[in-house]
Amino acid sequence: MTDTQTVSEPKNVGVTAAKGFRASGVTAGIKASGTPDLALVVNEGPSFAAAGVFTSNRVKAAPVRWSEQVLKAGELAAVILNSGGANACTGPEGFQDTHATAEKVAAELNVGAGEVAVCSTGLIGQRLPMGILLPGVETAVAALSPTGGEQAAIAIKTTDTVHKTAQVTHAQGWTVGGMAKGAGMLAPGLATMLVVVTTDALVPAAELDAALRGATRTTFDRVDSDGCMSTNDTVLLLASGAAGVAPEAAEFAEAVRTVCDDLARQLIGDAEGASKEIRIDVVNAASEDEAVDVARTIARNNLLKCAIHGEDPNWGRVLAAIGTTAAAFDPDRLDVAINGVWVCRDGGVGEDRDLVSMKDREVVITADLKAGAESATVWTNDLTADYVHENSAYST
Amino acid sequence: MTDTQTVSEPKNVGVTAAKGFRASGVTAGIKASGTPDLALVVNEGPSFAAAGVFTSNRVKAAPVRWSEQVLKAGELAAVILNSGGANACTGPEGFQDTHATAEKVAAELNVGAGEVAVCSTGLIGQRLPMGILLPGVETAVAALSPTGGEQAAIAIKTTDTVHKTAQVTHAQGWTVGGMAKGAGMLAPGLATMLVVVTTDALVPAAELDAALRGATRTTFDRVDSDGCMSTNDTVLLLASGAAGVAPEAAEFAEAVRTVCDDLARQLIGDAEGASKEIRIDVVNAASEDEAVDVARTIARNNLLKCAIHGEDPNWGRVLAAIGTTAAAFDPDRLDVAINGVWVCRDGGVGEDRDLVSMKDREVVITADLKAGAESATVWTNDLTADYVHENSAYST
Repeated sequence: MTDTQTVSEPKNVGVTAAKGFRASGVTAGIKASGTPDLALVVNEGPSFAAAGVFTSNRVKAAPVRWSEQVLKAGELAAVILNSGGANACTGPEGFQDTHATAEKVAAELNVGAGEVAVCSTGLIGQRLPMGILLPGVETAVAALSPTGGEQAAIAIKTTDTVHKTAQVTHAQGWTVGGMAKGAGMLAPGLATMLVVVTTDALVPAAELDAALRGATRTTFDRVDSDGCMSTNDTVLLLASGAAGVAPEAAEFAEAVRTVCDDLARQLIGDAEGASKEIRIDVVNAASEDEAVDVARTIARNNLLKCAIHGEDPNWGRVLAAIGTTAAAFDPDRLDVAINGVWVCRDGGVGEDRDLVSMKDREVVITADLKAGAESATVWTNDLTADYVHENSAYST
Repeated sequence: MTDTQTVSEPKNVGVTAAKGFRASGVTAGIKASGTPDLALVVNEGPSFAAAGVFTSNRVKAAPVRWSEQVLKAGELAAVILNSGGANACTGPEGFQDTHATAEKVAAELNVGAGEVAVCSTGLIGQRLPMGILLPGVETAVAALSPTGGEQAAIAIKTTDTVHKTAQVTHAQGWTVGGMAKGAGMLAPGLATMLVVVTTDALVPAAELDAALRGATRTTFDRVDSDGCMSTNDTVLLLASGAAGVAPEAAEFAEAVRTVCDDLARQLIGDAEGASKEIRIDVVNAASEDEAVDVARTIARNNLLKCAIHGEDPNWGRVLAAIGTTAAAFDPDRLDVAINGVWVCRDGGVGEDRDLVSMKDREVVITADLKAGAESATVWTNDLTADYVHENSAYST
């Protein structure tokens, strides 16, 4: 990233940081709370290339099935996003609601419905209030602005405590910016991680797809706040080409990765009820897949997540988690460090656990498998009484 | 089980319910709390056939490695069990401690060390206080009694709130009895599920092994309180033959299964911090393995476990969990019932969720995959603030 500079005080953030985009965030009235609940992102071209990555959950929300279909053409003119309802497990009627939403946006913008992606977030198993949502689309279109990125980011929040945007501008004059909602995959009601990234670079759809898949593989896919996978997760990348620059592929991919990594870290930083952000580094694995598998298994161990909440460097729980995987390692050679102190050496007691300080919000766990040269990092959160409280009282 | 009767008011419980066994439970001083911490079970024959099932965790505690080795001969004269320390991740020295414990028991009982199984439970990563434990073995031998089953069950408790025993006596005059400690696999520090089952039936080692594996497969293996697998889990079955009866294999297997099922339910009933016992029935799966996989995936979904704690019939979280599995099903045909109310039909909204009552401690979730004729049941618990508290404050 030597040639890429982060804009230090961006005048324009998120999905409108790049040229060629307008956005808005309005209150349609979908949420009972009366806070903003409908966002619109419009690509004004000259290019309309786009790519998307979606949840691998086999129970997919209607908007995910719609947007997957639309993306097959590799072009998008707009993305409409609502909070206040996931439109998941709503049957054929739910899919018709998504279709009607895309048609409404298309009519207002004078584009085809097949160029409009739809994202929804909120409780599963309830129809969207279409009588409120469709008039809301008109309000959102009227509010479109070349500086609307922040308002759009605000309108997609559910239990997020802050809105999340990121952007980088390359020395050649092109920009990648984005917005996200969600708290890892931890949002209540499985209420979805939604991400829209835009760029004014001139990049064909196939290259957008490669850059986006590469970026999500090592960023959003390695954020595992509570092991739960949503029915609605969607990450979209739209390119307007308005900067008139066709960047070198590797530089573009790196810029997309930087924005995704920034947003992914913001998701972990805002996870519901969490008091710790935990980075799990697995090193010297036989393969990257095994490194990810071990890191994810550690990240999902409830006993360990409780121990870290209690600032207890309980390395035995790390070993017990690693032991459940099929990765290559010798149990009698495992080393584990917590915040840099190697409390476990060769599968047994290492340095004094009292040397470990866990006061900071960020905790780093390092597991050395001594089985190869590959590594991976997964981020997670601790398990807290606040998490239990927020997620036991959501839909009632 | 028409020919098997549960003894309604047993004079003698647990591992000494069957003839040919003596047991004891004493306070060696391993636990700082001063509560009983050392149990001994001795088989007096005439048969010494035995079988064992151990944790599949690749990080195995020293006593597990020792007992696996000893069981290869298919005979056991005694089992020594300590609480107050798991002797896991303690290196070659830890294995020597286990060996020394077996040698001490063997010397006191005048048997071979290779006939003595060892079980340990407690915190991982600390050596056992051998200067306290070895004299404790003498105390335990001195306290051996043909009615010591209850004292033994008490001495293996860690965070268990109650001791756990079960027994059945067959009309033919043979008995199967057992004791257990642990709370599913939920015990803090991964402190282990330990189970010893005894019988006075005359059963060869190979048949004991088959009966025990068959029983654990559908009982202990389907108790999944918090998804965490211990380094120390051990289930042993010892036969004295003292009743002089060689039962029909299927009847014997069923008696062992009944005792294991009873103990497994007691583990779920005593899970740390839990307020609900959740039975997950997956029906009409394409195979039993797929039914177990789906049930276990539902059982491990933290969001759902929180919802059930909040008495919220949040069926969307059940569907989202099922959707992460590779089992055969059509997402648009899934049915889900909570406490008998089919709140989800064909992947969408079913009966009114307000009809679901979740006041009782037991909650039943039924998922109909409509993909075959196989089924499976997995038991789990809800996720509570008390669970977080108990497991964040254990080793500090």
